[in-house]
Amino acid sequence: MAVTFARGFRAGTAACGIRAFTAGASAIPREQKDDLCVIHSAYPCDTGGVFTTNKVKSASVVIDQLHLQRNQVQAVTINSGNANACTGAQGFRDALLMAKLSADRLDLDPYQVLVSSTGVIGRYLPMDAIKPGIAQACGQLSEDAGEAAARAIMTTDTVPKTAQVEVDLGGATVRVGGMCKGSGMIHPNMATMLAYITTDAAVESGLMAKLVKSVADRSFNQVTIDGDSSTNDSFLMLANGAAGNEPVRAGSVQAEQLEAGLVHVAQELARAIARDGEGATKLITVRVLDAVTDGDAREAARTVASSSLVKTAVHGGDPNWGRVVCALGYSGADLALDRLHLTVGGLVVFERGAGVDVDLAAVRRAFEQPEIEIVAKLGLGEGRAEAWGCDLSEEYVRINADYTT
Amino acid sequence: MAVTFARGFRAGTAACGIRAFTAGASAIPREQKDDLCVIHSAYPCDTGGVFTTNKVKSASVVIDQLHLQRNQVQAVTINSGNANACTGAQGFRDALLMAKLSADRLDLDPYQVLVSSTGVIGRYLPMDAIKPGIAQACGQLSEDAGEAAARAIMTTDTVPKTAQVEVDLGGATVRVGGMCKGSGMIHPNMATMLAYITTDAAVESGLMAKLVKSVADRSFNQVTIDGDSSTNDSFLMLANGAAGNEPVRAGSVQAEQLEAGLVHVAQELARAIARDGEGATKLITVRVLDAVTDGDAREAARTVASSSLVKTAVHGGDPNWGRVVCALGYSGADLALDRLHLTVGGLVVFERGAGVDVDLAAVRRAFEQPEIEIVAKLGLGEGRAEAWGCDLSEEYVRINADYTT
Repeated sequence: MAVTFARGFRAGTAACGIRAFTAGASAIPREQKDDLCVIHSAYPCDTGGVFTTNKVKSASVVIDQLHLQRNQVQAVTINSGNANACTGAQGFRDALLMAKLSADRLDLDPYQVLVSSTGVIGRYLPMDAIKPGIAQACGQLSEDAGEAAARAIMTTDTVPKTAQVEVDLGGATVRVGGMCKGSGMIHPNMATMLAYITTDAAVESGLMAKLVKSVADRSFNQVTIDGDSSTNDSFLMLANGAAGNEPVRAGSVQAEQLEAGLVHVAQELARAIARDGEGATKLITVRVLDAVTDGDAREAARTVASSSLVKTAVHGGDPNWGRVVCALGYSGADLALDRLHLTVGGLVVFERGAGVDVDLAAVRRAFEQPEIEIVAKLGLGEGRAEAWGCDLSEEYVRINADYTT
Repeated sequence: MAVTFARGFRAGTAACGIRAFTAGASAIPREQKDDLCVIHSAYPCDTGGVFTTNKVKSASVVIDQLHLQRNQVQAVTINSGNANACTGAQGFRDALLMAKLSADRLDLDPYQVLVSSTGVIGRYLPMDAIKPGIAQACGQLSEDAGEAAARAIMTTDTVPKTAQVEVDLGGATVRVGGMCKGSGMIHPNMATMLAYITTDAAVESGLMAKLVKSVADRSFNQVTIDGDSSTNDSFLMLANGAAGNEPVRAGSVQAEQLEAGLVHVAQELARAIARDGEGATKLITVRVLDAVTDGDAREAARTVASSSLVKTAVHGGDPNWGRVVCALGYSGADLALDRLHLTVGGLVVFERGAGVDVDLAAVRRAFEQPEIEIVAKLGLGEGRAEAWGCDLSEEYVRINADYTT
């Protein structure tokens, strides 16, 4: 399942104690969870990636952008517990060494390996702990380790996040699977998000790079906002061709079908991130309809979903829908108040320029559900989008006030 | 003191029970705090104002923008407990009625009165409660009511916020005083901020309008972010000429001296907002130096000051300076990591592209102070700016999860 659902992909994991060593420990903790994983493909993959737009990038991101240029990726090595960001020249040496150690074990060239890191910023990777971990993970690659890999990349995540789907490309059936880590936080964008989708579809070279941005815009970017992101955010799509189908060409019907499968898996993963927000107790889905453009709808939906006042109101079961209207107002999307139609949990709360005199107890019940849907019809065009968020709880603050200690 | 420090300004207050009536109460609560105030000037004022850039504006903001065009303002009527936003045509009638009732009592024309509201969005103003409040406030105007006025405009504020200074304009001494309400929140911009500065300086007509944006950019906009603001944010500067000085002309030395006094009061008020953030326990001052431009420095400083990860780290006394570097990275300001020099509480934590091996216990002690200064030298130019924020505590969530109830 997950990243090993598609044929030809295997994974391996190891428990290295990366976070403990980063914090200065001299021995691996007794009950150490897995914190390193390797994804391996039997064949070189067509690979696309999108990365953080932060001007401060983890060394791993810079190395990946370089390695992607050759488009011969066959493995990804990922560690949690240390972000390898703000680590200067040593950080680049360490990221390259992670790729080289993995390549040596897997009989690949280093440029065929991508690397990701997530965790504390500003500390050097404990390479003495990572080296044996890479050897161990590469030594026990398995088709059954998809779930274990999803666990190995977790940091403050409370559950592993995986999804998979089969896609019919007019005769040939291909598989798409994925995993991610990340939390839909107050500034959801600031939590590192790592996501990996693998497929056994055969595709023409460069197709994954063509599709990856559009898939991200309809999924991860609706919980993690572009241009306002962590040092390490990465989303990779790998296609290895193991399904043996006729290679999918850009612009074809098969490309649309494959893209729909990729979007499906990506949206499932994005929703899982929102639901697992640090300290979150509720999933918030914001659907914006009838915007001037899809881009406007995306902006409006994610602005509402990431508003901390909306999030705290939802947490408290507070029918304060005015905060939704306020967030729409500063989202940047075109808005005409007299055309706005707003529902919360299916109840109309705002139309024709003013609040509706609804039963506040019913609104409150709607807010108290574990999942709540906010639908804003802007009445201006045909643009539409969804975004996902979580409520904001006291627990969020506790988690983040004491992260490195 | 405060808005009555400058000669010729008086204030009056009243306890109307606006929030209770908005929530459906049928009688005024016994221990109702003042929730309405009127500021009155003995002479028509030269007035400048800046308002929210939210597309959803309170009726009061729209009315004020109209009334300012005549530039004959002589009174401001402000209520807390209800924002009069998202209230349709009724909201405009109510805002106009607030101005008219005040004007009638003060023998003014309605366009000489500005109105502000702050509180819950989407409920009609309880005008039956406000009418007698306006009569009462106008009936007991006093030079001693500056502090009471500052209390009347509070919502979740825990302390009234006032400041004043005397300015020597080369012979003539003029007075500048002010008050504000607002909290430096997670999205500081989303809390309604109302600020009023009065001066008895005589100025040429239009000077306040010329200065108000520049004063706001160096003060309130560094805790409350433009373009991402509440439905009601307003900042007004009124000059009534009671000091009898030679009218100050734009571009003169006296204009610079007066502007320095206005900025001083505005920065004092802005810092008070940051310090009084909802649930805040610490003031965070972010100073960015050597940026390419002042605008870059402003962006960078306020991005760091409003980062919820920086805020929670400061709250927890956590020496996680990597979050500061991350926030600088997505601020949009030009940044070259190898030139960045970062201090926290006077301790160097980052330079030459990597973290410094500092005594973490010392960093922790710095974070644990009630006020903490973060200084980022970007090493790129001569731009500089300050911004202010507060830490993020569990208490913030409790306050905002249950605001309208």
